[in-house]
Amino acid sequence: MIVVMKPGASKDQIDQMVTQVESLGLKAHVIVGTEHTVIAAVGTKRDGNKESLESGDGVAEVVRISAPYKIASREVKPDTTVVSTGSLSVGGGHIGVIAGPCSVEDEQQILQSAVAVKEAGATALRGGAFKPRTSPYSFQGLKEEGLKLLAAARDETGLAIVTEVVAPEDVELVAAYADVLQIGARNMQNYRLLEAVGGQRCAVLLKRGPSATIDELLLAAEYVLDRGNPNVMLCERGIRTFEDHTRFTLPLATVSYLHQKTHLPVVTDPSHGTGHAYLVPDMCAASVAAGADGIIVEVHPDPAKALSDGYQSLTFDEFGQMMQRCRKVAEAVGRIM
Amino acid sequence: MIVVMKPGASKDQIDQMVTQVESLGLKAHVIVGTEHTVIAAVGTKRDGNKESLESGDGVAEVVRISAPYKIASREVKPDTTVVSTGSLSVGGGHIGVIAGPCSVEDEQQILQSAVAVKEAGATALRGGAFKPRTSPYSFQGLKEEGLKLLAAARDETGLAIVTEVVAPEDVELVAAYADVLQIGARNMQNYRLLEAVGGQRCAVLLKRGPSATIDELLLAAEYVLDRGNPNVMLCERGIRTFEDHTRFTLPLATVSYLHQKTHLPVVTDPSHGTGHAYLVPDMCAASVAAGADGIIVEVHPDPAKALSDGYQSLTFDEFGQMMQRCRKVAEAVGRIM
Amino acid sequence: MIVVMKPGASKDQIDQMVTQVESLGLKAHVIVGTEHTVIAAVGTKRDGNKESLESGDGVAEVVRISAPYKIASREVKPDTTVVSTGSLSVGGGHIGVIAGPCSVEDEQQILQSAVAVKEAGATALRGGAFKPRTSPYSFQGLKEEGLKLLAAARDETGLAIVTEVVAPEDVELVAAYADVLQIGARNMQNYRLLEAVGGQRCAVLLKRGPSATIDELLLAAEYVLDRGNPNVMLCERGIRTFEDHTRFTLPLATVSYLHQKTHLPVVTDPSHGTGHAYLVPDMCAASVAAGADGIIVEVHPDPAKALSDGYQSLTFDEFGQMMQRCRKVAEAVGRIM
Amino acid sequence: MIVVMKPGASKDQIDQMVTQVESLGLKAHVIVGTEHTVIAAVGTKRDGNKESLESGDGVAEVVRISAPYKIASREVKPDTTVVSTGSLSVGGGHIGVIAGPCSVEDEQQILQSAVAVKEAGATALRGGAFKPRTSPYSFQGLKEEGLKLLAAARDETGLAIVTEVVAPEDVELVAAYADVLQIGARNMQNYRLLEAVGGQRCAVLLKRGPSATIDELLLAAEYVLDRGNPNVMLCERGIRTFEDHTRFTLPLATVSYLHQKTHLPVVTDPSHGTGHAYLVPDMCAASVAAGADGIIVEVHPDPAKALSDGYQSLTFDEFGQMMQRCRKVAEAVGRIM
Repeated sequence: MIVVMKPGASKDQIDQMVTQVESLGLKAHVIVGTEHTVIAAVGTKRDGNKESLESGDGVAEVVRISAPYKIASREVKPDTTVVSTGSLSVGGGHIGVIAGPCSVEDEQQILQSAVAVKEAGATALRGGAFKPRTSPYSFQGLKEEGLKLLAAARDETGLAIVTEVVAPEDVELVAAYADVLQIGARNMQNYRLLEAVGGQRCAVLLKRGPSATIDELLLAAEYVLDRGNPNVMLCERGIRTFEDHTRFTLPLATVSYLHQKTHLPVVTDPSHGTGHAYLVPDMCAASVAAGADGIIVEVHPDPAKALSDGYQSLTFDEFGQMMQRCRKVAEAVGRIM
Repeated sequence: MIVVMKPGASKDQIDQMVTQVESLGLKAHVIVGTEHTVIAAVGTKRDGNKESLESGDGVAEVVRISAPYKIASREVKPDTTVVSTGSLSVGGGHIGVIAGPCSVEDEQQILQSAVAVKEAGATALRGGAFKPRTSPYSFQGLKEEGLKLLAAARDETGLAIVTEVVAPEDVELVAAYADVLQIGARNMQNYRLLEAVGGQRCAVLLKRGPSATIDELLLAAEYVLDRGNPNVMLCERGIRTFEDHTRFTLPLATVSYLHQKTHLPVVTDPSHGTGHAYLVPDMCAASVAAGADGIIVEVHPDPAKALSDGYQSLTFDEFGQMMQRCRKVAEAVGRIM
Repeated sequence: MIVVMKPGASKDQIDQMVTQVESLGLKAHVIVGTEHTVIAAVGTKRDGNKESLESGDGVAEVVRISAPYKIASREVKPDTTVVSTGSLSVGGGHIGVIAGPCSVEDEQQILQSAVAVKEAGATALRGGAFKPRTSPYSFQGLKEEGLKLLAAARDETGLAIVTEVVAPEDVELVAAYADVLQIGARNMQNYRLLEAVGGQRCAVLLKRGPSATIDELLLAAEYVLDRGNPNVMLCERGIRTFEDHTRFTLPLATVSYLHQKTHLPVVTDPSHGTGHAYLVPDMCAASVAAGADGIIVEVHPDPAKALSDGYQSLTFDEFGQMMQRCRKVAEAVGRIM
Repeated sequence: MIVVMKPGASKDQIDQMVTQVESLGLKAHVIVGTEHTVIAAVGTKRDGNKESLESGDGVAEVVRISAPYKIASREVKPDTTVVSTGSLSVGGGHIGVIAGPCSVEDEQQILQSAVAVKEAGATALRGGAFKPRTSPYSFQGLKEEGLKLLAAARDETGLAIVTEVVAPEDVELVAAYADVLQIGARNMQNYRLLEAVGGQRCAVLLKRGPSATIDELLLAAEYVLDRGNPNVMLCERGIRTFEDHTRFTLPLATVSYLHQKTHLPVVTDPSHGTGHAYLVPDMCAASVAAGADGIIVEVHPDPAKALSDGYQSLTFDEFGQMMQRCRKVAEAVGRIM
């Protein structure tokens, strides 16, 4: 941590800041610059309230040097984490493909989808049973009934099940049916929920919130890891920007950046990341080329009749064509898909 | 709702879309333009999955005309809502002032703060007992012990208590001590939590998420209102933008815009909205001039030693000076503060 | 400047970086931390290409400590600059009010506008003669004919003239008629144009680009100042964010922040900052309360028939009412308007 | 264009709006909805100031249906444009690779770079002679001397030359040496400059401004096309968002979206789009997989000593490895590179 003093900060103010740095258990090095004096604070503690130093007299700003997360950090664990559960393997050269409808709507819809996406090469089935919806008047999901239909689809196809959990009190119920607990973008900083899935051992797919920084995403992962669950996959699903021709902006450099900073595998979500079905296949191919460890894609038997997210869902045919193209790209970059 | 067809959409595609619009219980008007044919869909339903029309063959885009929220809408209830609880009144000409530390730290800190902010003119006391923190390693709040200290501060000063609740299972506990339940920005779309506070009758302060649109904010309010709790205050606390000289960007036009769209009162949070104590007083004055119904401000006996948010907390003196200035501005615009 | 080395950077890499820092004429202080070694580079040069250090072997990041601008900096010139030209005075307690139509359309329109805004208390007249328009098919301004009409309006009313210049080759022509040369948001980083107005001595109103950081704005000002023209007013006119209920987001904390960093006066533009006439008066009042040194406001005799920007223009009546309210706010905060 | 009236708009207000729509030469269709009456305005004109309708009495909003650009539109010209000049071909299955240093620094640097990038497979040489720099104190380029060195490098290697032009008065000079005139992101809306390059017949590389919408980008292209120069390549170089781990956010869905809307070829700029050399190769591969018609990449013999943009420049080796990988990806998606 570097404390930058204002130009003209007095000796008293500098001394006081040194005392305060030392009271946090850190060693203070004072460097007198031509305009600014800076105090480098050295030590092992990554204490969250250091930022209060910023309100010290004569302080211009405080610059953090060390990453605020630990267990998620590649510095701490250099080996890439591979998350494997049933048919799904994400990380380490294998590209996982999680596909299926936004919401589980009925038995036929989910079974048909499971069979179709498996045939095309998907390695897990997605489908929402508990749906967080922007409007209270929208379809809210089939809940436990939906979970049962997902489990039936797994029995039929062998595909691992990925489904969202929206509240701590549902975690055990959802974990009883699902292979991967998805934390949605809206809940990325629902810490009680993160702690609850941290108490499980099944895999977790943690989606980046649409305005979360990468540090915030990794600190959210840290909540899960810190409770003892190491099976975390991160998911880039698009950020909110001024762009209005897509629902969100999908920043694929996230994949490469995360691979530098963390050992956790990284999945992308081109469906939410663009919000338009016709943009999804290109962004799937781009994700694979960029080094993503997995993709999660919305697929529906009849998108125009979907109860949610129809506008961004591929048909079975479109999904099949996308998979053929992506497999070639995966091969070109030396990955297995 | 307006369905815009692509240039060159076939008669079949148009007919099919008309059928689909009608199957949603809406009446379809077809207007043939020089480039685009558009279908205006008229009716009373505000059904959430209409957007699936966008995946219809030949459709270019779907434009929503009616606001997606109802109970929160000023069209539905033209009279401005005034939220009153104990010493706090927000809306209708009275400007509420909610002040206090980010976190309740100990008895002396919260009592001292309560006395000081009351003396300077605050009408409610803020203080966090359950703290959602970005890092699992940061101070997480005193929990029920903190609630008790807040209640003691109310006994001492008569100030209404505003405090955050972070999980549905805590709502009854927090409501037993507090006058106003705050929903933090990270939880704006935690629908289970919104439903839980919707089941209470005490006042709710709902903070806008840092990347939430106004429609999303009002739909979040709708979750609370729809459960029967009409006492909702909205809070603009800053949005995430590319600006890096402030922690968030505080868009004060939100106040005026919300006053057009909803009858609910609007509070601003210049502390989180700027992230730097020295910017807070100007943004308080600007909020009052812009017509805000209340402000919420972080104040701490010794910001440099605060366990959270010290960099954006005012001292007692700074708070007192800000209040004097803001009262004059309130008077200038015909409001009571 | 602080060079942060990666964890595990070798002694060779550190030595090499020290050499490189020294080759820039700076003194290097090495501080060995528990995770990162940092090198503080101390010296007087503010050389633009230091960032290349970032590509040195073993470097994690480079943190700049000193502001990159000089002449614009309040550290260099603590006294607030007051820009005065004819009827307009901006800075130092006087709030300038620049009002008028987006474009000069004809003699009657501009004269009528000049008389009306003067009567309501404006201290300068705005009006575009050279119009930078997003579409080549939009009205592009009356050019020199428009300048002549503006000069005629000054003769009639005594109001100083503020008008935009869009190209270096027009600067002398525009300066021959106008009192203040406006650099529009799209041209904030048109350096040739900045240099050209820097060669004049008349006042300059420099608008912030919609995605410019404050440092970039001040460096653009620096181009003008560095050529010898000290009469620069900065203008916050709204930034581009994800918000879609306003055309831009008007971040008023810019005013307070700039007042800390620079001695140059700060004007706000609530018309472009919101893009909707009904939001303009509240944002004018908020600007005054926040400490703005001036406002620039679009006013049109008949906004619905304006050739540009009608949707964000006030009528004469609305302008008059806004002025009455803002004068009271100005008085409340001890300013003259 | 659809004019949406406010709920409760009077018959008079609706009639008045119909009259106003008709006065623009458009036909008005009135549709009475349950909450809102809407007026569909049908006709061939794409007049820029229609938005003024928004300030009509009783109007809630105006929704534009037709794209505001014409010549750039794929509806107008369905066939994909291929821009070819010397060694460079962009569009129609050929992926152009434009590589070289940010700035031309000296003869050896540019010649060495030209030879190295050609050997690795680049099809054009980039290098800045006129450099628009954020700070007036940064290296501003070698100007005509730089152009001469570029021409010498073309003589030596046969590579087409891509270089930036920053002012209308320089266009002829730069066009005398270069094959492609680059319009930088800061100048995307410098209309005088766009008109000047529109008057040439050589190819133009038009970079998207960091906060420009796609419509704004295409309207900027329209300025060039409208003057008679059809040889326009568009370039996505990253947008400004809240993300701070990259200098800009590179939104690759732009490529696919532009391919739908326009016949012009699309190039991406992973160097500026990320701002960090180590992220560039992944984003090059992703661009190719997403369907980009070209990439432009900064390469420098010794990035740590570059006079500009060193932190985002590849070494010759890194560039060579990137090219090998990208060629495989291009083959996988059926393109030639």
